Amino acid sequence: MLFHVRMDVRIPHDFPPEAGATLKATEKQRSQELQRAGTWRHLWRIAGQYSNISIFDVSGPQELHDILSTLPLFPFMEITVSPLCRHPSSIREDDK
Amino acid sequence: MLFHVRMDVRIPHDFPPEAGATLKATEKQRSQELQRAGTWRHLWRIAGQYSNISIFDVSGPQELHDILSTLPLFPFMEITVSPLCRHPSSIREDDK
Amino acid sequence: MLFHVRMDVRIPHDFPPEAGATLKATEKQRSQELQRAGTWRHLWRIAGQYSNISIFDVSGPQELHDILSTLPLFPFMEITVSPLCRHPSSIREDDK
Amino acid sequence: MLFHVRMDVRIPHDFPPEAGATLKATEKQRSQELQRAGTWRHLWRIAGQYSNISIFDVSGPQELHDILSTLPLFPFMEITVSPLCRHPSSIREDDK
Amino acid sequence: MLFHVRMDVRIPHDFPPEAGATLKATEKQRSQELQRAGTWRHLWRIAGQYSNISIFDVSGPQELHDILSTLPLFPFMEITVSPLCRHPSSIREDDK
Amino acid sequence: MLFHVRMDVRIPHDFPPEAGATLKATEKQRSQELQRAGTWRHLWRIAGQYSNISIFDVSGPQELHDILSTLPLFPFMEITVSPLCRHPSSIREDDK
Amino acid sequence: MLFHVRMDVRIPHDFPPEAGATLKATEKQRSQELQRAGTWRHLWRIAGQYSNISIFDVSGPQELHDILSTLPLFPFMEITVSPLCRHPSSIREDDK
Amino acid sequence: MLFHVRMDVRIPHDFPPEAGATLKATEKQRSQELQRAGTWRHLWRIAGQYSNISIFDVSGPQELHDILSTLPLFPFMEITVSPLCRHPSSIREDDK
Amino acid sequence: MLFHVRMDVRIPHDFPPEAGATLKATEKQRSQELQRAGTWRHLWRIAGQYSNISIFDVSGPQELHDILSTLPLFPFMEITVSPLCRHPSSIREDDK
Amino acid sequence: MLFHVRMDVRIPHDFPPEAGATLKATEKQRSQELQRAGTWRHLWRIAGQYSNISIFDVSGPQELHDILSTLPLFPFMEITVSPLCRHPSSIREDDK
Repeated sequence: MLFHVRMDVRIPHDFPPEAGATLKATEKQRSQELQRAGTWRHLWRIAGQYSNISIFDVSGPQELHDILSTLPLFPFMEITVSPLCRHPSSIREDDK
Repeated sequence: MLFHVRMDVRIPHDFPPEAGATLKATEKQRSQELQRAGTWRHLWRIAGQYSNISIFDVSGPQELHDILSTLPLFPFMEITVSPLCRHPSSIREDDK
Repeated sequence: MLFHVRMDVRIPHDFPPEAGATLKATEKQRSQELQRAGTWRHLWRIAGQYSNISIFDVSGPQELHDILSTLPLFPFMEITVSPLCRHPSSIREDDK
Repeated sequence: MLFHVRMDVRIPHDFPPEAGATLKATEKQRSQELQRAGTWRHLWRIAGQYSNISIFDVSGPQELHDILSTLPLFPFMEITVSPLCRHPSSIREDDK
Repeated sequence: MLFHVRMDVRIPHDFPPEAGATLKATEKQRSQELQRAGTWRHLWRIAGQYSNISIFDVSGPQELHDILSTLPLFPFMEITVSPLCRHPSSIREDDK
Repeated sequence: MLFHVRMDVRIPHDFPPEAGATLKATEKQRSQELQRAGTWRHLWRIAGQYSNISIFDVSGPQELHDILSTLPLFPFMEITVSPLCRHPSSIREDDK
Repeated sequence: MLFHVRMDVRIPHDFPPEAGATLKATEKQRSQELQRAGTWRHLWRIAGQYSNISIFDVSGPQELHDILSTLPLFPFMEITVSPLCRHPSSIREDDK
Repeated sequence: MLFHVRMDVRIPHDFPPEAGATLKATEKQRSQELQRAGTWRHLWRIAGQYSNISIFDVSGPQELHDILSTLPLFPFMEITVSPLCRHPSSIREDDK
Repeated sequence: MLFHVRMDVRIPHDFPPEAGATLKATEKQRSQELQRAGTWRHLWRIAGQYSNISIFDVSGPQELHDILSTLPLFPFMEITVSPLCRHPSSIREDDK
Repeated sequence: MLFHVRMDVRIPHDFPPEAGATLKATEKQRSQELQRAGTWRHLWRIAGQYSNISIFDVSGPQELHDILSTLPLFPFMEITVSPLCRHPSSIREDDK
């Protein structure tokens, strides 16, 4: 089932740059694993923001939380979750 | 280019039901034409809300506005638009 | 899986009282069916508000939306949905 | 009597990790004592958030405050309290 | 136990004046009964607002809700409830 | 004349504990002097919050400000002030 | 003593124009009486808004409320009151 | 001098369509006169909104208010005004 | 022309007290010069807040910005500016 | 195509002044290059704020994000983006 997730990243200004770079590299790697697995179905950047909008395809809130809460940047993100379902006017079978 | 759009529908309680049904039927038809054309790329319902989250693929803000402002339900919707761009960690070529 | 739902009821002041009474009676009946089925697991009133806080146990966002959007009072409610999962400190097996 | 409590945890990024781990372990222990005593009746994680939603069964606001304000993580939490009462449509005798 | 309640009154502009006057007179009568009974312990007007701030002394959220939800102006009020308890610096024995 | 004051205390996590304890002790002493003088008429804790709701009886905004701005915890408090007046339905002569 | 008051006027679109004109004329007359009496010390329009910012010089919250709540447009105004006092850097003796 | 103005138009659903059409036609005419006069320097539509963002070049807040408050759609608009001045990094002489 | 300005001062808790005292003394001196020049026409303290409400009489947004942005406390203030104009009901010639 | 961008700058109080001065100088240089290229079409200061309002003329959200996210002050700015399009009442051919 699908969940719409917005993540706003707020890394403190005094966070050590090298530690930050490591976090971001690990985050990217993890994100791409999840994309390849089909779990992180879409990932967009919001123009002008250090934020993304994502669509996750998971077995439920538990799997979603397990994924989000173990992302390397989780302690530095504001996260908003909206459960999605099929829109009656949608023509795409898999948008559900 | 892609735009993320959230639409919250608020039809007044005293709106004539038949006129409302006609509006919704025309809205559905228009939405499906735009989906088939590839312009309205994704369309999801937010669970528990009379709202949708959509991804539009248009030539720019002008085409987006022309589409949204001529939707039959436009006068009854709160609309929020976020321009999207490619996320550097995305592995999907067309999510841009 | 569990979803936390808050419903704030706003019936317009000029809504016909009899139609309102019918809606509420049907809503109560439907709510009790869903409680007996185990789907609407908890239902509380917030003191001083025409609002409730509920816990639903459903198969996913689609079933949740199908239930909420067909409640008789749906057109008159502001609804907020939060997906829940098991808290690592919880000792109750079924609070997940 | 029942109170609905939402706790959002915000531990500063520069808080010493060991002190943090101790706080969380003590919090978990205290939380489970209160759950076993029937005082902390429900405890859920909100998916994607470092937050919980809880139902407390206490003798009144004083006991609730004494419990919440002595939780180890209290200085790091935003807390929202809503007093609950029995919903007229509820079929559960103990949801009051 | 004590609850702090703020009530903001919003009577629609097209509400029949006579019905409004009746509601207000009944509300005043009910409010004074509850004050004499010691249940509605304090009642103040906020300067410049059609609003009051009140302190209720009740047996719990259920009694509070039963009182508030049966006030004649209840359908026209925004109500905010905050449970109170004794402040450790208070010198008044009954402010609890 | 009466003023309703809400104070939310936010002491930074890295504030020296001893300095904090001294501030709180002085604050308590000052608060009790003002209560004994009849100036700080009521003082309640909001359950679950490091916050109080207070009623002050002062000669005007100037005296109120002189009192609040010299409280030891003033630099660490969010303060909201609402001027009160007699409610036409109140039966308490001194609630004005 | 001085109070800062902001008034935002919201007359419903379907309010009878003649009744509206009468209300506004009476409001203007009352406002000018109070200005001449020195009670309504300043009155400014906020550019682009159907709103004013005013300074009242009254004996306390009670007089302020009696004035504001009997203004002809009171039922159609959002009012925000801030009690003022002398600023320690002010050089104007009467700005208190 | 320049002012940034955002106007959000909210015409009630039950407003007579012909009266609405007349208002909009007059608004357009008035807007174009002011644009030709150089007073209404820029006028953009926000994509997806019945809203505009405008830059006015006027002699001061009084002229701005006289213009805005006599626009035919003024009673149906939420207006936000921000006074602008020259940015120290700007290279355009007339952006002041 | 007149501008209404609200300034909320937020000096960080770890700011060196001597540097803070110097800033405040310079701010006071600058404020009084501008008051004597007639530019800073009114200056009030909001009771219970480390905030002021001020009326400035300047030649336009540019002069206002030059004044506000060079105040010693500018980096520590939240500032809100509202352009004012003459109210049609005002009887004071200079309140424009 | 045009985008309306508001940038609010928030440089932490403990940021090294020299590093800050370097950032600002580089930001100014970059801003002027983009203005000369016609990409950063307008740039205004909001009076009383450390904020600007800008109009960008870019090929789409991707170019806009590439520009904004590489501005030297990007990590210290709150940015709000609104896509613009031609207003049907505009008489300026290039305001689109």
